[in-house]
Amino acid sequence: MKVAVIMGSRSDFPVMQDAVNELKNFGIEVEYRIVSAHRTPEFMLEYARNAINNNIEVIIAGAGGAAHLPGMVASMTTLPVIGVPVQSKALNGIDSLLSIVQMPPGIPVATVSINGARNAALLAVRILSIKYPKIKEMLQAFIDNQRDTVLGDKL
Amino acid sequence: MKVAVIMGSRSDFPVMQDAVNELKNFGIEVEYRIVSAHRTPEFMLEYARNAINNNIEVIIAGAGGAAHLPGMVASMTTLPVIGVPVQSKALNGIDSLLSIVQMPPGIPVATVSINGARNAALLAVRILSIKYPKIKEMLQAFIDNQRDTVLGDKL
Amino acid sequence: MKVAVIMGSRSDFPVMQDAVNELKNFGIEVEYRIVSAHRTPEFMLEYARNAINNNIEVIIAGAGGAAHLPGMVASMTTLPVIGVPVQSKALNGIDSLLSIVQMPPGIPVATVSINGARNAALLAVRILSIKYPKIKEMLQAFIDNQRDTVLGDKL
Amino acid sequence: MKVAVIMGSRSDFPVMQDAVNELKNFGIEVEYRIVSAHRTPEFMLEYARNAINNNIEVIIAGAGGAAHLPGMVASMTTLPVIGVPVQSKALNGIDSLLSIVQMPPGIPVATVSINGARNAALLAVRILSIKYPKIKEMLQAFIDNQRDTVLGDKL
Amino acid sequence: MKVAVIMGSRSDFPVMQDAVNELKNFGIEVEYRIVSAHRTPEFMLEYARNAINNNIEVIIAGAGGAAHLPGMVASMTTLPVIGVPVQSKALNGIDSLLSIVQMPPGIPVATVSINGARNAALLAVRILSIKYPKIKEMLQAFIDNQRDTVLGDKL
Amino acid sequence: MKVAVIMGSRSDFPVMQDAVNELKNFGIEVEYRIVSAHRTPEFMLEYARNAINNNIEVIIAGAGGAAHLPGMVASMTTLPVIGVPVQSKALNGIDSLLSIVQMPPGIPVATVSINGARNAALLAVRILSIKYPKIKEMLQAFIDNQRDTVLGDKL
Amino acid sequence: MKVAVIMGSRSDFPVMQDAVNELKNFGIEVEYRIVSAHRTPEFMLEYARNAINNNIEVIIAGAGGAAHLPGMVASMTTLPVIGVPVQSKALNGIDSLLSIVQMPPGIPVATVSINGARNAALLAVRILSIKYPKIKEMLQAFIDNQRDTVLGDKL
Amino acid sequence: MKVAVIMGSRSDFPVMQDAVNELKNFGIEVEYRIVSAHRTPEFMLEYARNAINNNIEVIIAGAGGAAHLPGMVASMTTLPVIGVPVQSKALNGIDSLLSIVQMPPGIPVATVSINGARNAALLAVRILSIKYPKIKEMLQAFIDNQRDTVLGDKL
Repeated sequence: MKVAVIMGSRSDFPVMQDAVNELKNFGIEVEYRIVSAHRTPEFMLEYARNAINNNIEVIIAGAGGAAHLPGMVASMTTLPVIGVPVQSKALNGIDSLLSIVQMPPGIPVATVSINGARNAALLAVRILSIKYPKIKEMLQAFIDNQRDTVLGDKL
Repeated sequence: MKVAVIMGSRSDFPVMQDAVNELKNFGIEVEYRIVSAHRTPEFMLEYARNAINNNIEVIIAGAGGAAHLPGMVASMTTLPVIGVPVQSKALNGIDSLLSIVQMPPGIPVATVSINGARNAALLAVRILSIKYPKIKEMLQAFIDNQRDTVLGDKL
Repeated sequence: MKVAVIMGSRSDFPVMQDAVNELKNFGIEVEYRIVSAHRTPEFMLEYARNAINNNIEVIIAGAGGAAHLPGMVASMTTLPVIGVPVQSKALNGIDSLLSIVQMPPGIPVATVSINGARNAALLAVRILSIKYPKIKEMLQAFIDNQRDTVLGDKL
Repeated sequence: MKVAVIMGSRSDFPVMQDAVNELKNFGIEVEYRIVSAHRTPEFMLEYARNAINNNIEVIIAGAGGAAHLPGMVASMTTLPVIGVPVQSKALNGIDSLLSIVQMPPGIPVATVSINGARNAALLAVRILSIKYPKIKEMLQAFIDNQRDTVLGDKL
Repeated sequence: MKVAVIMGSRSDFPVMQDAVNELKNFGIEVEYRIVSAHRTPEFMLEYARNAINNNIEVIIAGAGGAAHLPGMVASMTTLPVIGVPVQSKALNGIDSLLSIVQMPPGIPVATVSINGARNAALLAVRILSIKYPKIKEMLQAFIDNQRDTVLGDKL
Repeated sequence: MKVAVIMGSRSDFPVMQDAVNELKNFGIEVEYRIVSAHRTPEFMLEYARNAINNNIEVIIAGAGGAAHLPGMVASMTTLPVIGVPVQSKALNGIDSLLSIVQMPPGIPVATVSINGARNAALLAVRILSIKYPKIKEMLQAFIDNQRDTVLGDKL
Repeated sequence: MKVAVIMGSRSDFPVMQDAVNELKNFGIEVEYRIVSAHRTPEFMLEYARNAINNNIEVIIAGAGGAAHLPGMVASMTTLPVIGVPVQSKALNGIDSLLSIVQMPPGIPVATVSINGARNAALLAVRILSIKYPKIKEMLQAFIDNQRDTVLGDKL
Repeated sequence: MKVAVIMGSRSDFPVMQDAVNELKNFGIEVEYRIVSAHRTPEFMLEYARNAINNNIEVIIAGAGGAAHLPGMVASMTTLPVIGVPVQSKALNGIDSLLSIVQMPPGIPVATVSINGARNAALLAVRILSIKYPKIKEMLQAFIDNQRDTVLGDKL
């Protein structure tokens, strides 16, 4: 049970680290690295093509601006790909969001909120939970615990 | 192997039918119906709570405007929920998109493009493919076929 | 004469406190707490269902991002619900605003400006003023006083 | 029990008529007319000043573009004012929405969705329901009936 | 030869002071003060009605958010009114801009850029220049000087 | 007393004709023609430079998309220049509006609403009214008549 | 002297044909075909890698929505790549524009206006004109002719 | 082999310096200076008209807000003109981007990302590479080096 967390540049790591950490909380193996759609296109192709053979079951890809990484990776694998729009400097991530979510018919990317790396991990967890009963139990406990924390929180 | 396709109102059906049809192309059982977050909140809660026991493995939820259905359903199940922002009359679906994708940490929705019901189905297929080898094969064939169609298309 | 001020998370409190304070200026009883649409959906349902029996006459709900709280609460009560779009990190609250204001026909939310918690309180006061003559008098005095302050303000 | 429905120009009437009709469904007296912030500013002032003495309890104001009518009327009465952003030609009503909802502290307008005249009426009904038990009952029946219609709707 | 510079609140003064200063550079008499559309509607009406009798020839009005001041003043005078959209906190002034510029047919406001108070003054100068030859000469000298400054500026 | 109405292309004429007609209603001489910033830059420069000598007192310039005409003309004359953002095909005129209104300090353009050619004419009339008493009287009559028309309009 | 015109799908052809036609007007050889970033990623890589050896000197790439084609092609060639944002259904091409223009440092795409295929061709002509004197002459004649047409155009 | 880097004001220099530096890395001669469309229109015309005779082969023009410089320069030369939208204060550069990219048919500007001065230089390099084999080699080496840097970068 392994999830890949990839990102277009080192500057995305402070955001994407939330995904790595949350996945580890669920005991899921994580492989994370920089894969740049524009600066390493051939490596990206190779990485996406081999993911399934490397026992990866879900790919989380974060990118900002003209964020092509999630969509391109999705076009070269059958695995579910989750896209994280990283907040960009000028346009606050609305460019990243539209570049990731507005995919044409045929190749979907499961898009989460701007800088929503933690939710990307939780979405990967949900996806894995339909295959691994243990993960479903942990996810239910996570949700219950989250509820109890809010209920006990006094202003 | 069953996927639920729900939508906030009858007027969403012309869009959401694409999801139903694509899922059927993959031989996946589909349960589809109207579930309104605002007009049937208690039924929505009940529906989401029972989905997992009704053998549903992925929920696709389409809604427009202040599109609360996908996020609310996600908050009441551990299943992966895919949100389809339905194009709205005044704002062309940018309201639907932001209402669905900008979920707070803790509860993710896998968002696809505006009116992207067909891609929602294909995302459900990708999710199921990591559990069901048969689906993975069909998905690979679908992608290969899609490629060949484009390569053979002359302008 | 009681108004509820609820919010999706503790981080909304610095904004929503303005509503609490303004209501108290008018001598109105205020009940305020965290109610999360996504993390405590069943408690939210229960809270909304019971509000009218708990002598609440207006509900003010603040939330940011995919701000579902005001709309969901409105769907489970006959009370007037005032929505406060809390300014979000990436998109400055335009997501919060559209998620709250673009409600479908049947269930309205009275939306105020981004971070407009103080105006939410003053709107609650206006609503109460048509039932309670005392409040109408206080509101008229508030408006007159506001006018006089501006007229006396020298640059 | 009377509600005023005013609008900036005759061209807003096809939208605003939904408010008139819905209010009549609840047996509420409706006074409706054109009041233009820019073309009849003095009449607008007079109209707003006298509304409370004319037994009006809620004012619904619709306007498009630089939609000043709801905010200006609110500044000259203590009554709750509901603003309806009418969809504009070039910008689809996003200008109308921002001009109505982004009121400064001190004078609130209860804003509904773009072209949301019917919801404006239902919001007025909610406001009146906290004073008039009969209206509360009718509103609860309306909500129950709406729920049952959705539950019985087959695709 | 007198120009009025008015603004909706004290917080607009740091922006609007640029207009006051630039007008003084041209030796034009300036009257400046707070006039709030929403908090002092009757005073605003009186002020606009009397402007022409007080020898004011151009009115510059700055406001932010639901910026009604310029349009309302324009509706109550025949003088040219220049609107300055003041940058708002949440939406960076796009709300102010649309509320000022999107006036309906019949009542125009001469809109300048967000926070463009200095340009508002220079537009007033241009307007006065067609009546007062002295101002035209000063304006031509200003433009020539501006050109020479740029041409002499070395990076 | 002459006003120039210029536009970037023949396709702008259906919009800009409203300005021509409204000016003629006030008995103002109008010179109108195509002047393209991008296709006839030298002619534009010459036209702007000579406007004041050709007895033009106000220039109205309409353009769409990257609408450079109003700003460039303003940079080459001391006359007041009124910009009309013509609604563009893809972006509905938001590009035209921002290209015209967001002028840098030093050179202002008096911007009106998207497709607001008629208001551009009325703004020119206001500008001329401070020099020509006859125009001021006609403008006051226009405003009074507009008010009376609205007051007499029954729904 | 050859230019490639590629596009993501057959539905882009009505727009992209303008580029083909304008290039032919300048006597430039054009190779045009469908190359889909998402449906034919490997073919796209091969196509981009070989372009320079196939004597292509400029690549024009049109795409809509999450328009990855221009940026991905640019990442796999040293040739100048011109991106044409094709107007999308829901968001009018603002998604296409941002996905193409907001490229990260290292890999540029020369972006033109939404649906600006004809200008893409003229930009390719400008690029070729610095190498081929004959093209420069034709381009100057085109510009002169364009100017004369506008100057001779009577309203 | 010379490239001009021009900008509308001194405040654009911190952004545009990236273009100057990157061009120098490729051994390309750079001429850079302030040319203001609005404050020095005649100098701009002269500059653009003479560029080709001054052996300039590509012009990079940066500007913010109503950014007219790139488009106006393009209208007065046959050289390829690259536009850099400089991030503006209020609207984060979306105004600059639209003012530059949305050029009408006939005169194209090769637009890069907001503040993308470095990419503007790399685009000029690509353009020059089709004429100068030496530049093509350097560009290929740059791209290869960029790839290797990313591949060697460990998180």
